Amino acid sequence: MKYTIFGESHGPAIGVTLTGIPAGLALDMEAIRFDMARRAPGKSALSTARKEDDEPHIISGIFQGKTTGAPLCAIIQNHDMHTQDYERTRNLARPGHADYAAHVRYGGFQDYRGGGHFSGRLTAPLVFAGGVAKQLLARKGVFVGAHISSIYGIADEALEDWEGLRAVQGKDFPVLNDEAGKQMQEAILEARKDQDSVGGTIECAVFGLPAGLGAPDLGENVEGIFSQHLFAVPAVKAVAFGAGVAFALMRGSEANDPMFVDDDGQIRMEQNCAGGINGGITNGMPLTFEVTMRPTPSISRTQFTVDMARWENGVLELHGRHDPCVVHRAVPVIEAAAALAACQLMGI
Amino acid sequence: MKYTIFGESHGPAIGVTLTGIPAGLALDMEAIRFDMARRAPGKSALSTARKEDDEPHIISGIFQGKTTGAPLCAIIQNHDMHTQDYERTRNLARPGHADYAAHVRYGGFQDYRGGGHFSGRLTAPLVFAGGVAKQLLARKGVFVGAHISSIYGIADEALEDWEGLRAVQGKDFPVLNDEAGKQMQEAILEARKDQDSVGGTIECAVFGLPAGLGAPDLGENVEGIFSQHLFAVPAVKAVAFGAGVAFALMRGSEANDPMFVDDDGQIRMEQNCAGGINGGITNGMPLTFEVTMRPTPSISRTQFTVDMARWENGVLELHGRHDPCVVHRAVPVIEAAAALAACQLMGI
Amino acid sequence: MKYTIFGESHGPAIGVTLTGIPAGLALDMEAIRFDMARRAPGKSALSTARKEDDEPHIISGIFQGKTTGAPLCAIIQNHDMHTQDYERTRNLARPGHADYAAHVRYGGFQDYRGGGHFSGRLTAPLVFAGGVAKQLLARKGVFVGAHISSIYGIADEALEDWEGLRAVQGKDFPVLNDEAGKQMQEAILEARKDQDSVGGTIECAVFGLPAGLGAPDLGENVEGIFSQHLFAVPAVKAVAFGAGVAFALMRGSEANDPMFVDDDGQIRMEQNCAGGINGGITNGMPLTFEVTMRPTPSISRTQFTVDMARWENGVLELHGRHDPCVVHRAVPVIEAAAALAACQLMGI
Amino acid sequence: MKYTIFGESHGPAIGVTLTGIPAGLALDMEAIRFDMARRAPGKSALSTARKEDDEPHIISGIFQGKTTGAPLCAIIQNHDMHTQDYERTRNLARPGHADYAAHVRYGGFQDYRGGGHFSGRLTAPLVFAGGVAKQLLARKGVFVGAHISSIYGIADEALEDWEGLRAVQGKDFPVLNDEAGKQMQEAILEARKDQDSVGGTIECAVFGLPAGLGAPDLGENVEGIFSQHLFAVPAVKAVAFGAGVAFALMRGSEANDPMFVDDDGQIRMEQNCAGGINGGITNGMPLTFEVTMRPTPSISRTQFTVDMARWENGVLELHGRHDPCVVHRAVPVIEAAAALAACQLMGI
Repeated sequence: MKYTIFGESHGPAIGVTLTGIPAGLALDMEAIRFDMARRAPGKSALSTARKEDDEPHIISGIFQGKTTGAPLCAIIQNHDMHTQDYERTRNLARPGHADYAAHVRYGGFQDYRGGGHFSGRLTAPLVFAGGVAKQLLARKGVFVGAHISSIYGIADEALEDWEGLRAVQGKDFPVLNDEAGKQMQEAILEARKDQDSVGGTIECAVFGLPAGLGAPDLGENVEGIFSQHLFAVPAVKAVAFGAGVAFALMRGSEANDPMFVDDDGQIRMEQNCAGGINGGITNGMPLTFEVTMRPTPSISRTQFTVDMARWENGVLELHGRHDPCVVHRAVPVIEAAAALAACQLMGI
Repeated sequence: MKYTIFGESHGPAIGVTLTGIPAGLALDMEAIRFDMARRAPGKSALSTARKEDDEPHIISGIFQGKTTGAPLCAIIQNHDMHTQDYERTRNLARPGHADYAAHVRYGGFQDYRGGGHFSGRLTAPLVFAGGVAKQLLARKGVFVGAHISSIYGIADEALEDWEGLRAVQGKDFPVLNDEAGKQMQEAILEARKDQDSVGGTIECAVFGLPAGLGAPDLGENVEGIFSQHLFAVPAVKAVAFGAGVAFALMRGSEANDPMFVDDDGQIRMEQNCAGGINGGITNGMPLTFEVTMRPTPSISRTQFTVDMARWENGVLELHGRHDPCVVHRAVPVIEAAAALAACQLMGI
Repeated sequence: MKYTIFGESHGPAIGVTLTGIPAGLALDMEAIRFDMARRAPGKSALSTARKEDDEPHIISGIFQGKTTGAPLCAIIQNHDMHTQDYERTRNLARPGHADYAAHVRYGGFQDYRGGGHFSGRLTAPLVFAGGVAKQLLARKGVFVGAHISSIYGIADEALEDWEGLRAVQGKDFPVLNDEAGKQMQEAILEARKDQDSVGGTIECAVFGLPAGLGAPDLGENVEGIFSQHLFAVPAVKAVAFGAGVAFALMRGSEANDPMFVDDDGQIRMEQNCAGGINGGITNGMPLTFEVTMRPTPSISRTQFTVDMARWENGVLELHGRHDPCVVHRAVPVIEAAAALAACQLMGI
Repeated sequence: MKYTIFGESHGPAIGVTLTGIPAGLALDMEAIRFDMARRAPGKSALSTARKEDDEPHIISGIFQGKTTGAPLCAIIQNHDMHTQDYERTRNLARPGHADYAAHVRYGGFQDYRGGGHFSGRLTAPLVFAGGVAKQLLARKGVFVGAHISSIYGIADEALEDWEGLRAVQGKDFPVLNDEAGKQMQEAILEARKDQDSVGGTIECAVFGLPAGLGAPDLGENVEGIFSQHLFAVPAVKAVAFGAGVAFALMRGSEANDPMFVDDDGQIRMEQNCAGGINGGITNGMPLTFEVTMRPTPSISRTQFTVDMARWENGVLELHGRHDPCVVHRAVPVIEAAAALAACQLMGI
């Protein structure tokens, strides 16, 4: 299964084309809408006020409610666009955004309105695609879940099992420990008050993957496959598997996961520092990883930058509707990217 | 340019096939041998005593000292193998190693001697391939350098510029600050004394990449391309670009890199939290990233594990020659992977 | 540039997603509509009476009339569908069609109405994609043209130059020699009268390709790249380059194209048996090839086949609107596939 | 499974790297040597007198006689090279060869000796790779066979079944009808006497492929996959499936293969014009195709050409050892390419 996401924030529509979907899947649209609603903004002061009617219209690849095996194209119309917001500042490269890099890359022809094809809005079709992937995985006993593991240094509890993560999916603010979640929300609102934004981390796990998937070689190893999908999510700047960056502080005797034959005859590890992966191959333990997301670059504070039309220094003051934090909205997006990576790994 | 690495630690030879090399490059074999020597073990108590004669024999793709544009195959003979070392413990899955995952993946047919195709020795042809890539990049004014940024929590100085990194390449222990390096080496030797090993981090930078390379989409974005190459290096468990995991502790006003027009008319950033990448596209600043490497899983301490033939619990005591740390030897390997990624990004 | 075609004959819409388009192309929609009209049916007794309103709606990748470099998605609504036509015969595998193969491949979940995703109607978005490709090629001085070279054994004149092919593009029946074309049309109408259909061949040429594109290796050679695009066109069963199948009747002294330095200092060949390709690489002469298209499998005659629901022998009598020949409508489709292949070859 | 062929005719060695091979295959080297001997020259006046000792040395991917699943690299040393033969004519582009195209493509840095990487000798490692593929296919009940279907217009009998093709594999001159074969050999020897060469066709079939493999889309369809592998064989200029170019002379009522339920409950066709493929998907009938091979471009006759160093007209007189025909030696090469394509199709 491969996907191509298309569209711009202020174009007529955004969407996704999915190829290689197995035939005969009765698509559960409610489950997909549920995930898309988790991503949708406009629900509280924690996110942008832009209302997004994320209703996906499937125009191919479904017949009588089931996938046909032919390419599936789903489209989401764009609404509630304040296009004029962008005219005043269109030549001022927003620091932390792709404006300047895209200007060079696309020779100035990119759609600058609302971030264009770079907009976080493009994660809506990604969540759609991930929803299809999740349903294909569920048929094989594989489940994906994620939670906010930290925002601005405030940490959630550590992940334990799938049941814990499933409970998180129903929450407005997807953390394991709601008390920690409350503190995170305060940090977000404080940043908002300061016309600023905050970053954070998301921990994700894939349960039920069999041992023996992947290979050590380039293009085949599990970490490489997952990281490629995860870095395609805007704002992700780091991906760490298992114990992740803490490996650098460890000795081998701590980092090695002792193995044993469990009561059910399965080989398991007593801990999971490896995050379910050894030598680029799954080892049967849950696949775990953490992504770091940069603070939203759109902030209302005065920023020093350049005018790309005049090629001179300039000062930027952004108005409009911004997310003071995207980490909480990104939880289903990371799940989606992980589900698509898991499908690739399983040869679905 | 694409590469395929082949070989096993105790087979007749290891090597690499490189396709898509531009024709007419006068290959500087001295530069390649220099990098391969940086990776080679056996030089001190900091690494395994196995002597590796890493002389690459090129059997195709070179004519009259220059690349022809046809596939280049380079082969390195294996020597100094103590194959009998592995018979005693061949069914005991070494914790932290790929033994069990590979056993499931390859149905027990993998070459178990010395890690087989999973051996760190396979990074020798990777350094060869990276050496070719570096020479192709140099023709375009692009340079790659790396240093140990930490071992077991002891940090090197922060990276500043290309000149600093170039000096590192001539050192036996590749750090910017030799005082910190001395402490790191003590930590390695202490681990060795304890029959243990330590992990660490490597910081790498690519200088001279033009702005405008890459794209936000899956398979095209800079972080995805680099991470896929980096995670193909054994022991790498985390990849972080620019400010990396520190983004999670930041506000947008800190993380956004203010821009200005420099005296030479170039647009630059006042800091480089983005690591030279915005929206999956290079922005003209140095591309920077840090990888985390797990502690070497091969330790002499008694470890609890499973016997894969009997499918029962077992106890492992490894003898033989092991690296108490691979981070210092991995510096040219990370440079190689980065150089190959940079070639892919530049369409070389 | 890569494309994904989606949609089914009787679904809500068909379309195409194009990625990797260079930014800044002012898309000439009239030229695209012209090619799409050449493909459209319903114009005479030579093709199906189904009216197809092939108006492409671009929903992404275009901003202010120019390509942005982001993925372009174009959609064509479906109209004039007689869906009930297909219910009566839905379990009877039509000989020569993909019905049975698709039934096995997709487990019976494929959309059977009007051929579903296998319908010749899916060539409409292909012509759209090819239209974009042609405009990108034209900027580099590369032009693609084709003509019917034979139908049911009646041959057109041999191709000479680009001017000849350009004139063909304006014709209702795209041949060089209108007298031969008249005979071909009679053969088509006679087949139609007999409730039958006829096959034929299309000769195509790409002018202006520079020498030195391609490579001998798998996935890189010119013939392989073109043939992969051409065999993705329904009904194409053979692809032959240059002298093609006539090579089997030749001696080397006839087949080798003698070379000379032309008055303008260019190296050229005195004849073009090689079809512009030697060793999988372009040689600067026009790239020429011929495709063979099978007779339309949809015929009204009684045919012996199987009932896939009852898994027993059956008899099929198709009614409805069929093309007695698709070769003339396929000329712009072959041009489109060739243009997309040429873009791949040129790295556009 | 993917392969990369490397080497030059007059370099130290040629070879192939195979990735993605399933683990646990006990490689039958005798079967591989048998196929390589079928390809080898020097056996009679029908081919070049160059002696090729095509002994493949496997340097990775095999352990205790079985594939490990890791990349397999096999190397064939070069011997009996008359390198000085090529100095005299090195700047004279041989008509019909890739010399000029390669000169432009590789900037003059290609290895010109004996055709370099373009040499037909590179088909030796291809036959090796195909031999591995055949053994993997045999485990799934899939068999590949081919015969010369014509040389210089002299036709062999039509292919009937697998038994017929298997008998062909033991013959020095691989035809079904030895009487026709005798005439073909006379045609070859006559061409040789005239310092000339002849072309021909090879018909190939893959037996035992299940129905339901492939898809209609670009990159997925059976014809596209096979043709890409086949056009990577030097001298192949046309590929035709099933009835092939004869479709252009047919009516639908002839070309459509009537279907029936066979006594064993399998759905089959009464004829096989489709060559086992409908809509880009296998239909369970034998997959059949014919390739056209151009006459060997190396002929001793005087030829008009250009001097690429002086960029002026020149006259070429080739001496040395040439094949007056490569069709008979190419039979196992086409089988190899077909076997590799079949593996790709089956996801091996």
